[in-house]
Amino acid sequence: MLWADIGEAGENMDFFTLKSVEEARSEFLGAVTRRMAAERVAREAALGRITAAPVLAPEDLPPFPRSSVDGYAVCSADTFGASEGLPAYLTVTADIPMGKAPTVPLHPGEAQKIATGGALPEGADAVIMVEHTEQSAPDEIAVLRPVSPGENVMLRGEDCRAGEPLLPAGRLIRAQELALLAHAGVRDLEVVRRPRVAIISTGDELVPPEETPAPGQIRESNAQALQALVMRDGGEPAYLGLARDDEQQILALLRQGMAHDLILISGGSSVGARDLTSELIGRLGAPGVLVHGVKLKPGKPTILAVADGLPVVGLPGHPVSAQVVYGLFVSPLLRQMQGLPPEPEFRPTVRARLTKNVASAAGRTDVVRVRLFRQDGEVWAEPVHGKSGLLSTLVRADGLLIIPSAREGLLAGDMVEVEVLE
Amino acid sequence: MLWADIGEAGENMDFFTLKSVEEARSEFLGAVTRRMAAERVAREAALGRITAAPVLAPEDLPPFPRSSVDGYAVCSADTFGASEGLPAYLTVTADIPMGKAPTVPLHPGEAQKIATGGALPEGADAVIMVEHTEQSAPDEIAVLRPVSPGENVMLRGEDCRAGEPLLPAGRLIRAQELALLAHAGVRDLEVVRRPRVAIISTGDELVPPEETPAPGQIRESNAQALQALVMRDGGEPAYLGLARDDEQQILALLRQGMAHDLILISGGSSVGARDLTSELIGRLGAPGVLVHGVKLKPGKPTILAVADGLPVVGLPGHPVSAQVVYGLFVSPLLRQMQGLPPEPEFRPTVRARLTKNVASAAGRTDVVRVRLFRQDGEVWAEPVHGKSGLLSTLVRADGLLIIPSAREGLLAGDMVEVEVLE
Repeated sequence: MLWADIGEAGENMDFFTLKSVEEARSEFLGAVTRRMAAERVAREAALGRITAAPVLAPEDLPPFPRSSVDGYAVCSADTFGASEGLPAYLTVTADIPMGKAPTVPLHPGEAQKIATGGALPEGADAVIMVEHTEQSAPDEIAVLRPVSPGENVMLRGEDCRAGEPLLPAGRLIRAQELALLAHAGVRDLEVVRRPRVAIISTGDELVPPEETPAPGQIRESNAQALQALVMRDGGEPAYLGLARDDEQQILALLRQGMAHDLILISGGSSVGARDLTSELIGRLGAPGVLVHGVKLKPGKPTILAVADGLPVVGLPGHPVSAQVVYGLFVSPLLRQMQGLPPEPEFRPTVRARLTKNVASAAGRTDVVRVRLFRQDGEVWAEPVHGKSGLLSTLVRADGLLIIPSAREGLLAGDMVEVEVLE
Repeated sequence: MLWADIGEAGENMDFFTLKSVEEARSEFLGAVTRRMAAERVAREAALGRITAAPVLAPEDLPPFPRSSVDGYAVCSADTFGASEGLPAYLTVTADIPMGKAPTVPLHPGEAQKIATGGALPEGADAVIMVEHTEQSAPDEIAVLRPVSPGENVMLRGEDCRAGEPLLPAGRLIRAQELALLAHAGVRDLEVVRRPRVAIISTGDELVPPEETPAPGQIRESNAQALQALVMRDGGEPAYLGLARDDEQQILALLRQGMAHDLILISGGSSVGARDLTSELIGRLGAPGVLVHGVKLKPGKPTILAVADGLPVVGLPGHPVSAQVVYGLFVSPLLRQMQGLPPEPEFRPTVRARLTKNVASAAGRTDVVRVRLFRQDGEVWAEPVHGKSGLLSTLVRADGLLIIPSAREGLLAGDMVEVEVLE
């Protein structure tokens, strides 16, 4: 068995030759030029996808001027100067039915009854709310306030003009984008193809979750988590299986992975196994392994590689480390491959006060699992201790606290921003 | 056409007889006793589901004491007092293979080579990291530091003991829970059945998104957004269709909705249509309409009802109002029905400085769409103006700023917490 100098906990070993998280990420993301192609999907299938091109409005939205209140369509000029003391009197000439085009044009001195969403008749330029009128005669209203041109009206094309972009490229389709597309009558659109992500696990000690481990064996679990995370990030996971710490087995799965857009290989946990993985990744193509080991805790034995244009990430076998490395390197990569900025511009966090000091070496990024709780009207973040091989510590944690490389630890009572684990 | 006193913008009309958002929500959630039953699903299908009962560990995890580093399994007592100047010398008697049970017991004065994840031999109670040893002879190591009992070892059952809960009831299954379940060999588990949510849209002016609207008509879009939001919140949407503002049509769809766990009916936008909807909901069963109109902007014409145990929510026709009402009343309801607290205990937000004053009447909850941007090293929240009938304002917004009823507006420069729109 080989022992190299990058133990997960071996803090003293050539730590200063390792790259910082920031350097490693920037080098890796810069080296990955692969971007997903576009594909056309029906609007109904577009939820959670990312636009590959601007989606243009086929027509003006709304297609006609609509009232945004219940009231009377009027010529605004007729209401100028109107007040409770000196109302403007208008003759009601029609009641505009919902869902029909108004048939009677509006002339000065006239009003037409209109409901929210109704189409304005020709000649009207504003709507006076029913609350600001009084019925002064069977076919007459008293207008008690002035309205300005366009008031209480959604103008034709105010939501979007025909031919202009409803949505820009690189936009995630959420509920509201889907509604806008439906509203505009868009039937299909160009979205970014989902990155196909090959997932491989390696380790002599692992058996598939369906099997009963023999003494000395444990059930594989990283691949399960990685599949879920890849789906969350818009990718299409393909689990290629479990390899022994064996050159031929690992190489066979890696080569199979080359048909995908990204390979995630979750390491054997021993240094020897990790070195083997790194060596085999290096054989896949140029430029090969860019980063092997980062100043990160947990997650030091990360491997970042590009082989003939295909990104390959070697994740530590420890489940906690694997999830941390996924968040710092794989999530940004998948975003970039899908045409998004690698990091969301505004990341929601929970602000909390730290319960105890947390040490962190200068130059190293520390990711601390924390449990959140309330006490005395404040939110507190309590570090969850436990070895990074223990899955239960991740399940007990509400979020992660990232101590960037520039900081040397945090103090009890410090206000921190916690990223909630999703 | 009927005109009642609850116009979306009719701020003056009996505003003080309306309920606050807090009162309305608490009354409504208190009246809904329906909770989803449990169903058994395979682990592979459990992602995004919520546990209906604690999931117990079938066996100790890990099933044997494992090393969490690369090094040597030892009796910790042999290392007490060891230092670089005065090492403890131990005889290496075995190299423990990964994935196998150790066959050689460890005696005092001995060490066995072990890799991360390897099983500790009988007699060993700690692992000394390889970095803290030196090869002093072919079969001997010098231990340069002491280790304490249990150091660098994941004890048998340290992750979870057999028969104890791996996961509590009411827990959302995320990537890490899925990994823990796989690791423990759990094949299926009890999760909460997805609430089936009937979605109905009404309005004489609406046509399905597939159709080309005639003059005066527009394409239905609220149902599209509601389906996406229901899925996000763990529900199973069933779109029942579009009814004219017609008693028989609406009643037929509402009765069809009674076979579901929740009905969402997205209103005709006129007051008359809303009053008709409220009246028809009231006929479905006792206690009927609990709330019709809340001190909320936008979203005033909200209807909250319970009919023979079935919750029914009438949402405003304006798309922005509908999404706001969904977030304030439907999301908490779906969480409660699935056994979660109505509000997440810790809601991540983006803290930003407000660009301008925002007025809000005392007693009223205001929900303001905001665009986020960075300037001079700070994050700013800029209110997005536009009528609540315009969908593009929601698409342009990054998040929502909620001004609770107790606040009378906010000032330019105030620090605010923005909920990012997902």
